[in-house]
Amino acid sequence: MKRSERLVDMTKYLMERPHTLIALPFFAKRYGAAKSSISEDLAILKHTLASNQDGVLETVAGAAGGVRYIPFLGQKHAEKYLSDLSSRIEDPSRILAGGFVYLSDILGDTQDLRRIGELIATRYAYEDVDAVMTVETKGIALAQAIARYLNVPFVTARKRSKVTEGATVSVNYISSSLSRVSKMELPTRALKKGSKVLIVDDFMKGGGTLTGMEELVKEFDGTIAGVCVLCEADFDKEKLINNYLSLVKISKIDTEKKLILAEPGNFLDETDFDRF
Amino acid sequence: MKRSERLVDMTKYLMERPHTLIALPFFAKRYGAAKSSISEDLAILKHTLASNQDGVLETVAGAAGGVRYIPFLGQKHAEKYLSDLSSRIEDPSRILAGGFVYLSDILGDTQDLRRIGELIATRYAYEDVDAVMTVETKGIALAQAIARYLNVPFVTARKRSKVTEGATVSVNYISSSLSRVSKMELPTRALKKGSKVLIVDDFMKGGGTLTGMEELVKEFDGTIAGVCVLCEADFDKEKLINNYLSLVKISKIDTEKKLILAEPGNFLDETDFDRF
Repeated sequence: MKRSERLVDMTKYLMERPHTLIALPFFAKRYGAAKSSISEDLAILKHTLASNQDGVLETVAGAAGGVRYIPFLGQKHAEKYLSDLSSRIEDPSRILAGGFVYLSDILGDTQDLRRIGELIATRYAYEDVDAVMTVETKGIALAQAIARYLNVPFVTARKRSKVTEGATVSVNYISSSLSRVSKMELPTRALKKGSKVLIVDDFMKGGGTLTGMEELVKEFDGTIAGVCVLCEADFDKEKLINNYLSLVKISKIDTEKKLILAEPGNFLDETDFDRF
Repeated sequence: MKRSERLVDMTKYLMERPHTLIALPFFAKRYGAAKSSISEDLAILKHTLASNQDGVLETVAGAAGGVRYIPFLGQKHAEKYLSDLSSRIEDPSRILAGGFVYLSDILGDTQDLRRIGELIATRYAYEDVDAVMTVETKGIALAQAIARYLNVPFVTARKRSKVTEGATVSVNYISSSLSRVSKMELPTRALKKGSKVLIVDDFMKGGGTLTGMEELVKEFDGTIAGVCVLCEADFDKEKLINNYLSLVKISKIDTEKKLILAEPGNFLDETDFDRF
């Protein structure tokens, strides 16, 4: 196979398997090419991705070495995307009763989910995440998008029992919007004991649901890689959670004046784009 | 930019935007290259994808022409994947009470979702699908995976009212597993009137839930591009629906003997892999 064909196939192969170490001999065999040729191919790939700031090809040296594709969105891309997203969220037709904001169009748009997934996967690329966790229903799209770019499984906690998932572990948490104790659960077989878990959700008001997921992770003897939400309502009362990242922060919703103010959240400040 | 670099970037760019027509002048400008060079690049890309049988680069001639990347999984890949998937589903530890099967690991595995998404997107590549529809909760991962490869939005019907989605349209349907009338609903703004909709779900017993989604599509003056499920329980009583595709067919579940029999469903027979 010629270099030009190898480059097309290699790009596709690596993009489909983020964070997976591929040994050079694998490619050498796949293309019937010398390892030195493969090394040159990979140098071209690495250089091209780097100059676009939208992906990183990581080289691992040594006998057990190879290359690994790390989905990555550079700082300028990230700033522009979150600024655009905030403007779109300021559309007053999104205002719903109870201080909620309609986000289902964004959470159902595959191009938005690609950007959001790449972005959050950039922040947690080197946190050794074993699984992404969310709670039904609207966080699922977000969890799946991030899991795709970290190439790890995602699991969905439920707020009510489902007959189709077998034995579960359940926890209680304070549902802040209702100021009462609620229950959430996860099938025992869904998560390996001791996993490092990234907790995500679409919308955060008081943060009660996120604390519920933190409790669940503890019940599985796991550790928390981070907590990240698409949108936080910053005007809301005290938070039940401290360490979290938000892509977008909504500082005001005025139902009468049909006004909604949104801006990029703390995600950009808390992400070290230069480490790539 | 050199050809080798152009090929890497072009492959990535096209893969990220399936089913989107990209005009040649766009690439010519992006790379500062002559249109004739871009045409040669695209010929290499097309040839490489075709020989792997896992993607198609479609060329559209004329003034408004360009190229379009169509995610595609060739017949041999498809047969192998569905045969493997069926074997994995036969694992007796998946059997749950009530004739259900634990599939959440598959529906939370990003590599499985990639294959499943590519496969179903292959079948409906030329059906002019405007949106993918599912019903909460476990169908969401499937809908998102397919929507990604068709590059269309996906929408989620709910079985109960959510405060965070505004006005909804609701329908009644016969929930076959419960033999009673249930309700499902979709936000009015979630789906454009007159859309052509692909209906999907993770697991089908009697098909009642699928008929509910068909009713919803009608309420939005839409048409149905197709109905496709990951798994159907073939041993179950009469179906409430006729025209549907299934990737995997479960013909027997014996809870006492801890036995589950699965095989590829009618999807392979109903897909014309040669048209690509």
